[in-house]
Amino acid sequence: MTHPVNPPARLLMGPGPIDADPRVLRALSTPLVGQYDPWMTRTMSETQELYRQVFGTGNDGTVLVDGTSRAGIEAALVSLLAPGDRVLVPVFGRFGHLLVEIATRAGAEVHTVETAWGQVFPVSVVEEAVRRVRPKLVAVVQGDTSTTMNQPLDELGAVCDRYGALLYTDATATIGGNPLEVDAWGIDAATAGLQKCLGGPSGSAPLTVSPRAVEVLHGRRSVEAGIREADDVVAEQPIRSNYLDLAMILDYWGPRRLNHHTEAASMLYAAHECARILLDEGRDAVVARHATAGRAMTEGVQALGLRVFGDLAHKMHNVVAVEIPDDVVGDAVRAAMLEDHGIEIGTSFGPLHGRVWRLGTMGYNARKDAVVTTLAALEHALRRAGHAVPQGGGVDAALDVYAGASSTVGTPSLVEVSA
Amino acid sequence: MTHPVNPPARLLMGPGPIDADPRVLRALSTPLVGQYDPWMTRTMSETQELYRQVFGTGNDGTVLVDGTSRAGIEAALVSLLAPGDRVLVPVFGRFGHLLVEIATRAGAEVHTVETAWGQVFPVSVVEEAVRRVRPKLVAVVQGDTSTTMNQPLDELGAVCDRYGALLYTDATATIGGNPLEVDAWGIDAATAGLQKCLGGPSGSAPLTVSPRAVEVLHGRRSVEAGIREADDVVAEQPIRSNYLDLAMILDYWGPRRLNHHTEAASMLYAAHECARILLDEGRDAVVARHATAGRAMTEGVQALGLRVFGDLAHKMHNVVAVEIPDDVVGDAVRAAMLEDHGIEIGTSFGPLHGRVWRLGTMGYNARKDAVVTTLAALEHALRRAGHAVPQGGGVDAALDVYAGASSTVGTPSLVEVSA
Repeated sequence: MTHPVNPPARLLMGPGPIDADPRVLRALSTPLVGQYDPWMTRTMSETQELYRQVFGTGNDGTVLVDGTSRAGIEAALVSLLAPGDRVLVPVFGRFGHLLVEIATRAGAEVHTVETAWGQVFPVSVVEEAVRRVRPKLVAVVQGDTSTTMNQPLDELGAVCDRYGALLYTDATATIGGNPLEVDAWGIDAATAGLQKCLGGPSGSAPLTVSPRAVEVLHGRRSVEAGIREADDVVAEQPIRSNYLDLAMILDYWGPRRLNHHTEAASMLYAAHECARILLDEGRDAVVARHATAGRAMTEGVQALGLRVFGDLAHKMHNVVAVEIPDDVVGDAVRAAMLEDHGIEIGTSFGPLHGRVWRLGTMGYNARKDAVVTTLAALEHALRRAGHAVPQGGGVDAALDVYAGASSTVGTPSLVEVSA
Repeated sequence: MTHPVNPPARLLMGPGPIDADPRVLRALSTPLVGQYDPWMTRTMSETQELYRQVFGTGNDGTVLVDGTSRAGIEAALVSLLAPGDRVLVPVFGRFGHLLVEIATRAGAEVHTVETAWGQVFPVSVVEEAVRRVRPKLVAVVQGDTSTTMNQPLDELGAVCDRYGALLYTDATATIGGNPLEVDAWGIDAATAGLQKCLGGPSGSAPLTVSPRAVEVLHGRRSVEAGIREADDVVAEQPIRSNYLDLAMILDYWGPRRLNHHTEAASMLYAAHECARILLDEGRDAVVARHATAGRAMTEGVQALGLRVFGDLAHKMHNVVAVEIPDDVVGDAVRAAMLEDHGIEIGTSFGPLHGRVWRLGTMGYNARKDAVVTTLAALEHALRRAGHAVPQGGGVDAALDVYAGASSTVGTPSLVEVSA
């Protein structure tokens, strides 16, 4: 019964989590230091600075929430939305529904616009809804892995600003692998996780809030009983959560370093290393690597004769949804991929459950060998399941993409891809 | 700027976090596996079984909450308490105030009884309050590190049961180092963290709920939008938090394995190893080790001529609060301990801030050499700060305790200490 954890060899090519970068695994085993040790507070500040660069922001209010990406989402929503506040959620997949769910529980008045799974919203549709609803906050997923769609956000900040709304985005599945420019796009709050394109484990949620969002948080700020001093504020209607109270989390990370939780130091180390890996390679280069890997996987599955789900012009770089052929049992092929090849791929949720497989190419696994190995395995799993596939088609198509991409390495055209 | 984390050498002898056991640090760097991989679900189930043993319970509802110990506390309180529900909190330190804070934010009607810092409650006082308030829940910290007091809980379950109340305890600071018997004591919900006597990092909160508590949770159960099926329930008044919704967290860990968060696999590995370390040594033996280390540290500081704060008969094994002598500056001595000796000790909160130092002896650091090294350093730090201390007094007293304890190793008297 009590033996050490000893996982089987796996290549995680689903929608995430994916294999953590070995550098991150090593960082996780770094010895602990007390949370108010000068070295630790310095390391926390350094981590904030690293994530400012990852998010593309100068926001002071850039921190980690100690929980999975979902904790980051709830911290943003429960802290920015007081009961009765109006929020608009454009829903284009399962994680849009999650924003609705969380905002509803926060007591907000939730309005939605919906589009078919596999589509994104034209900016005009969102603008129309903002004009009608006049929300305090527009909350939108950037990349919804359930459909693989990547909602363009670059014009939404200006739209929100025009109507006095804040803009929040859940960038968990996109950050690092797809362009994200918090400041340039006028995003007021963004949250993420480590387990997708950042190549780390789930359990730490990088988060950033604009000065405008911080103002809203400060209006709801309370210092908690037990450490409150005479001149500390107590809000009339404090944020409903203590653990996910962003105003207190900012006080904890800020110069006052007010005690809140005990920092999850190992996850902080992991987050620190995830950001370093990304920034060492270069933000644009990492996005370009994801674009190439995503294209190779997409063209690979198409060359195997499979259909790709959704609007390809708005697909995230790092995940592709493949329609499951009628003549195979989706879960049986997934099981063969796992058991015979050691490769994990996913299915999806709701209307797409059992209808698509999702293949991810992200973080440490946005690599040529990982893409090619997966396509080779998929060819054989399909063949053995009785579905006819062209021999070598997927592998050749993927390698062709890489050959094309590498012929442009170091040239301006590659830089354009990543712009 | 972007160098790998490279912490200074530290011996963490404060109120926690403390040095993680090297076995736990190694477990943290284990490769990731997908959350629905058969190996992972098996490992999750195994971790549940390990924590049943750690908590002393047969509760099915034994899981990890993916956050720090505070996340576990809030998960228990926000899930068990609906707005308007009455809760009674006996407050005997800073973490009692935290329960008040969290329960208040959950919308509960909060009643308190308070006692002086450094004291615990006689059971009769709690019973009187329960009779008066008739709460749905009594929420009490087991060991409040702010005062080092360990509230006896062994009779509270029966009291609560008599008045139809549930009993919740925050065992973060006590679990592993002090007796805790969830089932035998009639505790309906208990939460913990890894960063004290379990010798792990902060960031995972083991939690257990009794069948009676699960019934309450099921009455508030909702399956979230996005994964809800036609026959799934939606509560009229769902739990206010999504991330900390224990009913959903139980569904995620239970046989249905309904998608909630993405399990923080690295922290799961750490939690798994923390429990193994404890159970390999034996629950009673670990408590006895903490009792000995705590006694050695306490007698050591007393032999240095320092006064110990609080009711010694009800002190936690794993932390001692030492009154700071009038002729030294507390923070200067703490800084010397850190900078000259590499040893972290703490101060406390509120009325005890700057009045006491807190010295911890817990988890991996509940060791003879760690105690002795700390007492030797404290002697020199005090001496150099101009405070007269008997040369060798602390070290000798601690070694005497160990000599006495080791002379009884394997004899029934040591087993009695741990009972």
